[in-house]
Amino acid sequence: MWAALGPIGSASSGGYRRYAWTPVDSVLREWFAAEAAARGLDLVSDRAGNQWAWWGTPSASRPGVVVGSHLDSVPDGGAYDGPLGVVSAFCALDLLRERGFRPGRPIGVACFGDEEGARFGVACAGSRLLTGALPADRGLRLTDADGITMAAAMHSAGFAPEQVGRDAETLSRVGAFVELHVEQGRGLVELGRPVAVGSSIWAHGRWRLDLLGEANHAGTTRLADRRDPMLDLAAAITAARSSAESRGCVATVGKVAVAPNGVNAIPSAVTAWLDARGAAAPAVAADVGSAAGVLPVEESFTPDTSFDPGLVRRLSGLLGDAPVLPTGAGHDAGILAGAGVPAAMLFVRNPTGVSHSPAEHAERDDCLAGIDALARVLQELAA
Amino acid sequence: MWAALGPIGSASSGGYRRYAWTPVDSVLREWFAAEAAARGLDLVSDRAGNQWAWWGTPSASRPGVVVGSHLDSVPDGGAYDGPLGVVSAFCALDLLRERGFRPGRPIGVACFGDEEGARFGVACAGSRLLTGALPADRGLRLTDADGITMAAAMHSAGFAPEQVGRDAETLSRVGAFVELHVEQGRGLVELGRPVAVGSSIWAHGRWRLDLLGEANHAGTTRLADRRDPMLDLAAAITAARSSAESRGCVATVGKVAVAPNGVNAIPSAVTAWLDARGAAAPAVAADVGSAAGVLPVEESFTPDTSFDPGLVRRLSGLLGDAPVLPTGAGHDAGILAGAGVPAAMLFVRNPTGVSHSPAEHAERDDCLAGIDALARVLQELAA
Repeated sequence: MWAALGPIGSASSGGYRRYAWTPVDSVLREWFAAEAAARGLDLVSDRAGNQWAWWGTPSASRPGVVVGSHLDSVPDGGAYDGPLGVVSAFCALDLLRERGFRPGRPIGVACFGDEEGARFGVACAGSRLLTGALPADRGLRLTDADGITMAAAMHSAGFAPEQVGRDAETLSRVGAFVELHVEQGRGLVELGRPVAVGSSIWAHGRWRLDLLGEANHAGTTRLADRRDPMLDLAAAITAARSSAESRGCVATVGKVAVAPNGVNAIPSAVTAWLDARGAAAPAVAADVGSAAGVLPVEESFTPDTSFDPGLVRRLSGLLGDAPVLPTGAGHDAGILAGAGVPAAMLFVRNPTGVSHSPAEHAERDDCLAGIDALARVLQELAA
Repeated sequence: MWAALGPIGSASSGGYRRYAWTPVDSVLREWFAAEAAARGLDLVSDRAGNQWAWWGTPSASRPGVVVGSHLDSVPDGGAYDGPLGVVSAFCALDLLRERGFRPGRPIGVACFGDEEGARFGVACAGSRLLTGALPADRGLRLTDADGITMAAAMHSAGFAPEQVGRDAETLSRVGAFVELHVEQGRGLVELGRPVAVGSSIWAHGRWRLDLLGEANHAGTTRLADRRDPMLDLAAAITAARSSAESRGCVATVGKVAVAPNGVNAIPSAVTAWLDARGAAAPAVAADVGSAAGVLPVEESFTPDTSFDPGLVRRLSGLLGDAPVLPTGAGHDAGILAGAGVPAAMLFVRNPTGVSHSPAEHAERDDCLAGIDALARVLQELAA
């Protein structure tokens, strides 16, 4: 499966550019559909365009156990963030069938769309639209860097945006969701273990800072006469770090747009995006806004999410007292947990701890341990 | 002439995007050729692709008097920076003919290419290639944001890059060069005068700062484990302002490129460009580099340039003791002066003082005063 997936959306940087509702995204969806078809699974697309491949027929009265993740990437992301969970889900299902397992409940493999939010700025857009955490009218109006709305992008990709909305029927078919993911940190490296169970996801918000100035000539405008928004950007970046440090959060300014972005022109405007995580994330955003002299615009906010404590204990026990770790990264499993679906996660050891980068990695033996763990989880939950 | 020029390269911002060796640039060159042809002038392109329209035949033994400027723009630049000088040059020539003036020396209208350096990062590239201040091999290797070399861009525009090099023959035909330009500041507003004579151009350098970090996940990477080049950018921006203030220069960070520029990814690299002007500009660049922890890469540097003092006095006297003003902006007239051509400038009042912005402006009466001044200059120098 990796061989077919490898070239899709790969960039000269060595990383991946797999953004929602692009031609590359369509190829990824075709890959998922082909893997489902090769296993005789029933492929269903929900109202938000997320893909579900079912072994057995789930219903509200007989909901299934679902495993899976996402295939899209951040700009120049690594190969594992997302795809490892989808590939492992198919492999776990193959393993169960090899072992002659007869499920007592339907088993599903899910692939959520637009998890990274790389194109439209809202993470987990697919699962948020599914659960209604992101209302359809707000989601469809989001625009990418070229001003293309999500609705227009869906339309271009052959998906009818009119159908988007909270999809209670799909949710009712999900009895439990377990997402396997490459660890985004070195917790398992320090513990010397291949697989952990996720306990919770930190609160996570994204804010946009619209810093306005006055375009002018870089050579002829006296310093005192300038309104240079680049100085506000510097204040914002500095405040993000110091506020996060003092408030026990993490905060990042990872994306910046400068207009007109000319070497010899004082910018008319700078837009900066702040990503802050932890209990005090909104306070960090307020600190940054006040340092830069603007009110931050909240683009998304997800409060702290705990996975189902019973499910977490059960999985940890099942996997030989696997470590239980929280994470600062958002995931579709967190969005589903927030919507009342019993959900949990498995993390696979990442030697460098690096993620959202081509350096992200998991050793083959650890990937196999992840697949085995996922198969045991399915065997337990779908018995 | 303005009516035909107006739509070329106009952007939705209300400003202009007229970059060197693009299709828009070709249309501007055609416009210049058509204006020359309409007046029966001889059109010559020099080895750097700058355009010269001659009334009479200049030679090394009978060099001409040249007026003109450039037509290209910064990103979202205004309508006057450059085009006012070219349009006024043609108008001044029309005025002389209306008045029945018979020149004793050839008169030329020049249009220099790539004055702003918006695409390849080197200002006054056309006149620098002409004078050899920018060696051909270095200039042709410059790349734009898409990695296209200047040589490839010239080739696409139908201009053979092989011919580029110092063009002594063209320079020998220029006895004097006077460039009219909209003022980039409010000096004339404060003096209550429509036209000034330029005295000198400040030293001007551009440096690139390559700030390297390590791409990683914005949510899962501890602050202490980060190598975030955005923090170095903040330090660079802050140092540029404070160093320029203390050293009596102006300095601007107007252009920034972030990789991968994702909301939830710590950048792997940030590139920032510093524009600094004034006697201590190189010291400012050194301060900025040391604040950001890198060695700034000099992309261009032009020392302080004084225009021909005798010519400046003569023009000021001719124009009723017109004010004599220095400028922080670079101009082709400064490059020619640096190459030993007797050169000077005329500035036309700009009510707001704003330039490199759609807000740049000159009143109609002041434009007419500029044309009249240019005609008197030609009448005097080409008698």
